[in-house]
Amino acid sequence: MAENNSSRGGNGILSVVGTGPGSSDYLVPAALQELQAADVIVGYRTYLDLVRPLIAGKEIVVSAMMQEVDRVNQAFDLADAGKHVALVSGGDPGIYAMAGLVYEVAEARAGSSEIRVVAGVAALNACAERLGAPLMHDFATVSLSDLLTPWEVIEKRIRAAVEADFVVVIYNPRSKKRNWQLQTLLEIVEKHRGADTVVGMVRAATREDEKVRVTTIEQFDVTDVDMQTLVIIGNASTYIKNGKMITPRGYRDKYQLA
Amino acid sequence: MAENNSSRGGNGILSVVGTGPGSSDYLVPAALQELQAADVIVGYRTYLDLVRPLIAGKEIVVSAMMQEVDRVNQAFDLADAGKHVALVSGGDPGIYAMAGLVYEVAEARAGSSEIRVVAGVAALNACAERLGAPLMHDFATVSLSDLLTPWEVIEKRIRAAVEADFVVVIYNPRSKKRNWQLQTLLEIVEKHRGADTVVGMVRAATREDEKVRVTTIEQFDVTDVDMQTLVIIGNASTYIKNGKMITPRGYRDKYQLA
Repeated sequence: MAENNSSRGGNGILSVVGTGPGSSDYLVPAALQELQAADVIVGYRTYLDLVRPLIAGKEIVVSAMMQEVDRVNQAFDLADAGKHVALVSGGDPGIYAMAGLVYEVAEARAGSSEIRVVAGVAALNACAERLGAPLMHDFATVSLSDLLTPWEVIEKRIRAAVEADFVVVIYNPRSKKRNWQLQTLLEIVEKHRGADTVVGMVRAATREDEKVRVTTIEQFDVTDVDMQTLVIIGNASTYIKNGKMITPRGYRDKYQLA
Repeated sequence: MAENNSSRGGNGILSVVGTGPGSSDYLVPAALQELQAADVIVGYRTYLDLVRPLIAGKEIVVSAMMQEVDRVNQAFDLADAGKHVALVSGGDPGIYAMAGLVYEVAEARAGSSEIRVVAGVAALNACAERLGAPLMHDFATVSLSDLLTPWEVIEKRIRAAVEADFVVVIYNPRSKKRNWQLQTLLEIVEKHRGADTVVGMVRAATREDEKVRVTTIEQFDVTDVDMQTLVIIGNASTYIKNGKMITPRGYRDKYQLA
C-alpha cells in the first residue's frame, strides 16, 4: 500500500493496482493486499482474467475497452458510496496507465474517497528481463499512440532519442489502424544507427502465449508486432550474445571484465 | 522465475534478483522464490539488510561496495561449484543494475551455470508512485554517473530529452564527488522549460527514512539529493495538484474529463 498517497478524507477507498505483466509470480504483495481487501473490482476483462483466481467472491465490474474516463468515474462513484474499490490496470498503473487519470478525474469531482496507488512491474521491466539486459544504460520510452498526442510530437521525440543514442522502448507500437508508425520509426533508427541495430520484442510477457524475438532491424518483421507487444531498440553499443540482447553499462574502454 | 533465461547447462544456478525499492510489500513473488531456493546469497550489505528476515539460515556473502565485477565472478565461482546462488541488487536487476554485468561476465568465463534474471519494481516505478503520476507520458531515463560514461555523452542526452519535452528521470543524481552535474542539468531544463518546471525527488522510497518532495526548479534544493535519491523532472505539461506531481496522459484539448 502506498502509505503516503492522497487521503482525501471521508468515504471509501479507490485503490489503483496493476496486474504486472501477467503471471501472478510478478504481482507485488502490496497490490495483492489491495485486491484482497477490496469490496469491488473494476477493470477490463483482459486484466481481470489475469487476477481472476485472486478475486473470487468479490463484486466485479467489467468495463468496456477505451471508455477510460467513464470507468474511473464509475470506480469513484462506488468509492464515494463507501466501498473499497480496486481499479485494475495492466503492468504498473504509474507507467502510461490509470494513476494519472485517477488523479485528474479526482480534481474534477467533489468526492472525498481516499486514493491509493500501488506501483508494480511494468511491461518495460518484464520485457527487459525476457530479452536479456537491454536497459543497462540510458533509455527513452515513447508511446506510438497518437490518439492523445499529435504524431509530430511523437516523431520529434523519436528523432531526439535516436540522435542522442538512447535505448528506445516503444509502447503501443502497432495496431490494425496504427500500421505505419513503427515502420517509420525503424527507418529513422536505421538511418542513424544502421540496419544491424539490435531490436527486441516481447508479446504477452510471462503469459502462456509469450513470444520473444531478439534480432536486428534488417531482420525484424513488423507484422509480428501488435498492441500486446513491447519493442526495445538497442543503442549503438547493444549486441546479441547467446540469444540475449545486452546493452553494456558503459563504454568498454572504461572497465575490465577480468 | 524467468523461465526463458539462458540455460548454460551443467552445474549450479545464478539467480539475479532485485529487492525492489525496499519494503517487502514490493518484492515480487518470483524473486522471493529464488531467494528461498538459493543456498548462498551474495550482495552489498545495504541490499542484504532489506531482505534479511527472508534469508535466515542461508550462507551469506557480503560484498564490498564498487567491486561489481569481482562480486559477479565470486557468485559465478560458487554457482559453477554446484550451488544455487542468489545475487541481490536493489530495485530491478534489469534497470541500470546487475543483469547486464552477469551476462557480460558469463561471456568471459568458461562456466556453465544456469542464469536466471527476475524483473522487479525499479526505483523509477516506486518513486513515480510516491510522487503521484509523473510517468503518464514519454520519459527519458539518464544516469548522471560519469564513472563509465563520458560527461559529454550524458549532457548530450539531457539536452536531447529536454528539447523534445520528455519527462526526465535522473538516476545517480548526486554524491559527495558528483556535486555539480545535477545543478548543470537543472539549468539546462530551466532555460528550456522555465523555472516553474515541476521537479520531484524521492529518497529511500518505501523505507522508514523515505523522503518525498514535489516542487519547482526555482524552489528545489539540490543539497536534499544524495545517491539514494531519484529525481524526476516534469515535461512542459506536468503540474502539481494536492501535493502530487501529475503529467497528463496527452494533450488537454484531446480529451474531456466529464
